[in-house]
Amino acid sequence: MKQLGKSSKFEYTVEPFTEDFTGVLAWQELGKRILAAAGMHADSHGFGMKQLMPQNMAWVLSRMTISMNEMPKVNEKYAVDTWIRNIYRTFTDRCFAILRPDNTAYGYAYTTWALINMETRMPVNLENLPDGGFAKWIDDEKICQVSDNSRIRVKESEPSRVITAYYSDIDINRHVNSIRYIEHMLDLFPQEQYTGHPLANLEIAYHGEALYGDSLALYKQCVSPGIWDVEVRMLPREDETGREKKICSCRMTFK
Amino acid sequence: MKQLGKSSKFEYTVEPFTEDFTGVLAWQELGKRILAAAGMHADSHGFGMKQLMPQNMAWVLSRMTISMNEMPKVNEKYAVDTWIRNIYRTFTDRCFAILRPDNTAYGYAYTTWALINMETRMPVNLENLPDGGFAKWIDDEKICQVSDNSRIRVKESEPSRVITAYYSDIDINRHVNSIRYIEHMLDLFPQEQYTGHPLANLEIAYHGEALYGDSLALYKQCVSPGIWDVEVRMLPREDETGREKKICSCRMTFK
Repeated sequence: MKQLGKSSKFEYTVEPFTEDFTGVLAWQELGKRILAAAGMHADSHGFGMKQLMPQNMAWVLSRMTISMNEMPKVNEKYAVDTWIRNIYRTFTDRCFAILRPDNTAYGYAYTTWALINMETRMPVNLENLPDGGFAKWIDDEKICQVSDNSRIRVKESEPSRVITAYYSDIDINRHVNSIRYIEHMLDLFPQEQYTGHPLANLEIAYHGEALYGDSLALYKQCVSPGIWDVEVRMLPREDETGREKKICSCRMTFK
Repeated sequence: MKQLGKSSKFEYTVEPFTEDFTGVLAWQELGKRILAAAGMHADSHGFGMKQLMPQNMAWVLSRMTISMNEMPKVNEKYAVDTWIRNIYRTFTDRCFAILRPDNTAYGYAYTTWALINMETRMPVNLENLPDGGFAKWIDDEKICQVSDNSRIRVKESEPSRVITAYYSDIDINRHVNSIRYIEHMLDLFPQEQYTGHPLANLEIAYHGEALYGDSLALYKQCVSPGIWDVEVRMLPREDETGREKKICSCRMTFK
């Protein structure tokens, strides 16, 4: 029987139709792989949705940074390696290395998660889990090289676009899925942006949850050449009054 | 060395974030797998994009029907098996079986392709290819059980939605990718549609090609209970006059 290591590595090929028009793996496809790797690693190590759903608890993604020096091209092989970096109060950080077949890195990702009690909607203190919880799987020595967290603040008051959350935006928890926000944000930039200056770094923070039929306003603002801050705000629902509510914010750094 | 068979089989797991909100593999994710399988089979058998691009030829998808008795659920394994059914003048038909681990079928897909000379934009006569082309790979005996081709005609004159083709709609050929049309069509139906009555059969015919920035009007019309015809028409571009141009049409049959 294979001994379970602290990290899990998942191997893939960039299949046709998962690339963008420049011929490299699309960011949203990489994002899906990263979050799927998180889920599969947690499941296999005893603290995934498989084990937590019956206890009425669920992992919620709070922040994600993806830094890519280069993207694998269509038909090329790559791997997603993932491990737990640390646990602090109600949060845990999980790292990812996106690797070439020779184990050099295409790039890295860093994510922060909270474990939510689905009844109370309150986060669980991860330091007080029975039997030390999943602390034994922490690896705080492996390299995970991402740019630091930025303070993202969009002052723009005119949305670039207002969209509605449709069927294909919704995930199994009946919320707009974390990756679809990224896809909608990528769509705020013209085709020319991606030819000479591909995206190199993406930092996204999730603040709220949108449901099917919700209207989402997307705002973008240039911070400095090649660096854009984007914010998604939910418009008040039909039965609500009041202001737009911040759903997620993102800094996108182009090469 | 493994002998090359007439068909190729690709094995997958329904990874988290490739399911829809009901917990089964999303149709657009299955669609990507089907077209990727076509490309990988053709490449490995000597008549794929790898071999044809240097000769300035490309495969163009003309029609696709997907019939699913059931969809694999998240974390379940499935395989996509594909082979060439026949060759007739400028068209070739390719079949797919979507299989459970015990080799029973979740469903099937049937596709029709033309090989286009990229300079003249004219289809190549597939019966006159040198050395018989890829005729030796035909398997016309394997079962591929899809519903017959329908005559799709949408008379509706008011679009359900008008969308713009953005970055994430565009594929490596700089056209709106074949699968994104399906995604936009799925989004025409309310969330409730998918709970009790999931999609069982989808027939799509591609008539034209849209580019980045094009405006696409989506029309839908109920043919009989649970059966909808959908049409995507491109609005005239800024430098054009005239009428909307049919880009693709689809019949969607819900359970």
